[in-house]
Amino acid sequence: MSLDAGLAAGLGTVRVVGTGLLGTSVALGLAHSGVRVLLADPSPTALALARDLGAGVIDDAGEPCTLIVVAAPPDVTADVVLAELAAHPSATVTDVASVKNGVLQAVRAAGADLSRYVGSHPMAGRERSGAVSARGDLFLGRPWVVCPPAAEGGDRVDQVRRLALALGAVPVTMTAEQHDAAVAVVSHVPQIASSLVAARLTGADDDAIALAGTGLRDVTRIAASDPMLWAQILAANAGPVLAALRALSTDLDDVIAALAAIAAEDDPSLDQSGDLDAGAPAGHAPGATAALGARARIARAVAAGNLGRERIPGKHGGSPTRYRVVTVLVPDQPGSLGRLFADIGAAGVNIEELSLEHAPGRAVGLLEVSVVPGTQGRLEAALSAGGWHVVA
Amino acid sequence: MSLDAGLAAGLGTVRVVGTGLLGTSVALGLAHSGVRVLLADPSPTALALARDLGAGVIDDAGEPCTLIVVAAPPDVTADVVLAELAAHPSATVTDVASVKNGVLQAVRAAGADLSRYVGSHPMAGRERSGAVSARGDLFLGRPWVVCPPAAEGGDRVDQVRRLALALGAVPVTMTAEQHDAAVAVVSHVPQIASSLVAARLTGADDDAIALAGTGLRDVTRIAASDPMLWAQILAANAGPVLAALRALSTDLDDVIAALAAIAAEDDPSLDQSGDLDAGAPAGHAPGATAALGARARIARAVAAGNLGRERIPGKHGGSPTRYRVVTVLVPDQPGSLGRLFADIGAAGVNIEELSLEHAPGRAVGLLEVSVVPGTQGRLEAALSAGGWHVVA
Repeated sequence: MSLDAGLAAGLGTVRVVGTGLLGTSVALGLAHSGVRVLLADPSPTALALARDLGAGVIDDAGEPCTLIVVAAPPDVTADVVLAELAAHPSATVTDVASVKNGVLQAVRAAGADLSRYVGSHPMAGRERSGAVSARGDLFLGRPWVVCPPAAEGGDRVDQVRRLALALGAVPVTMTAEQHDAAVAVVSHVPQIASSLVAARLTGADDDAIALAGTGLRDVTRIAASDPMLWAQILAANAGPVLAALRALSTDLDDVIAALAAIAAEDDPSLDQSGDLDAGAPAGHAPGATAALGARARIARAVAAGNLGRERIPGKHGGSPTRYRVVTVLVPDQPGSLGRLFADIGAAGVNIEELSLEHAPGRAVGLLEVSVVPGTQGRLEAALSAGGWHVVA
Repeated sequence: MSLDAGLAAGLGTVRVVGTGLLGTSVALGLAHSGVRVLLADPSPTALALARDLGAGVIDDAGEPCTLIVVAAPPDVTADVVLAELAAHPSATVTDVASVKNGVLQAVRAAGADLSRYVGSHPMAGRERSGAVSARGDLFLGRPWVVCPPAAEGGDRVDQVRRLALALGAVPVTMTAEQHDAAVAVVSHVPQIASSLVAARLTGADDDAIALAGTGLRDVTRIAASDPMLWAQILAANAGPVLAALRALSTDLDDVIAALAAIAAEDDPSLDQSGDLDAGAPAGHAPGATAALGARARIARAVAAGNLGRERIPGKHGGSPTRYRVVTVLVPDQPGSLGRLFADIGAAGVNIEELSLEHAPGRAVGLLEVSVVPGTQGRLEAALSAGGWHVVA
């Protein structure tokens, strides 16, 4: 269930360049599996911290290594990769930057040895940064994208895939372009949308913000992310993000136009949409008909979101399962959840997903427990029998 | 901790018009507290279902009532409120529609008895709809906005506040305009943003969607909402939503322009931003300088999101607390969480927030337990001593 020491041993000596969150996590995971890890970082303080955390030894003797992991900030990754390729003429070099094509193009443009460079991207991270937040099991079970440069370098690619496996990650092969287009849609655009929605709150009244529910909390959770890091990531993936954002902007403009048509219903002097109504049924005022169509456009935008949401896989990477939800009232006291989960365990039911919502201003929470269909009834009966308030 | 039977008894006979999710939940909560509840709905089937669930009696004898709760679909709420005001000349009438100013204006425009109408909006709901999903404790601990029409109707307003309190909700007084502007920002704009981000996934490859992490899941959770209901809600609040969406669109355009300037760096033929660089330092190519400014603009957009996110109150309605997070590896077997929570309870530590993340393709989960500062060390020590893998 944890890291694979056998795989790790086959990696040889690994040099990790950059001892921030990701680099130190890679180093810790490998070092814990017995790999000899050499550490490098331009900051002596960051370097000493990683060593003191047990991530490896400081590489001051130019010791030979077989694999180099570059975990530098996005805007210097390509330069560091080129320097490592030049300084270590037989080692395989990978990097863990979250955008891949720019690094690959820079390595290619510099005329470096492309057969020894294999870019990669572990889909893992934390909201906190730095070596102090690093953990050797950060990559456990997460996808780790490996981007072979064209068809070259089979053995080198295998080496990077074994690195991912040794850290408990699941290697996924795609081209740098495919990777960058994918993360634009599944990571970068959601980040921008979350930030922009949260930014709307800066000018709102306290009374308005007090009405916030779990919907707003969920949408804006990642808006707490690091601005400088994200400016680098987004800039490095400007092309693919731009394409996805422009498509989103077109959809947004359509919702805005639909709402403007509806607002014009209440104040017909604002209506500029009459010329859209050539095919309107007789007996409808032009403004009212435009607004009817406008409601359908809004419904279509929300329905398109339904379809997209349904495509996100469920846990364990499988297709989404329709879980059943059992909702239980939980008094806000130490031990309540302990007793509750002991009772759930005693019922022999596995919990698929969990969500605990606290009632604002009340010493009570609602725990929503998702279970596979067929176990819901048994769980509800067991909990009710145990004296829990199961919300029917 | 539950509903207040004393308050409920003082309400007199309550008529609930519309036996969907919200109306039936109101009726169930009141009926369970001993209130006589009269039920009405244009659908005989929906009406019989609510009665069979124990929500009240069918109102076929025109029995007198003191308070009427209109829980009709948003697009017919105003008409139903007017009909109820006319048919019950002494009763107070409230409604629970999620947009308030349109209903108020319609009641005013119709010349109805404004002293007897008090709009309201319980900030509660479920992703499922209909009487079958109703629950009497749906409003427990949630804000319930009460909108007095100007300074009129003090006793009537008190009556609606007591309704909220009897259902366990927290009454919050604001004008209809304040309410509508607030929900535009904390509810309606997040809904649209979530739907638009999710809609981007409809055209993505399966391989891309397989890279989805918790960020995307959180941002798109509410994208699963009902399109027709949301088209009605957004149309009813077109003005305030339009204002907030246009501001968001301006911010989005700025991010797009910044990314376009950066993309033009790589392909200078695309650069149309040279004329922005009149004050550029000597020695920088115009495109590169525009792109530097562009990175700062992106960072500012993300930083504005940080500020907005920090304004969202923590649980119990207080200001946000910086919880400490303890992360524990959980084998994916029935009873694991039971044993874990029993151990947490035995340590005497209260859980503030919970998040269970399953590793795709792996039979293991990571449970993140948020606790108040000062209890983290004790909890980690207790769990480690109990044989749990606490992720440091």
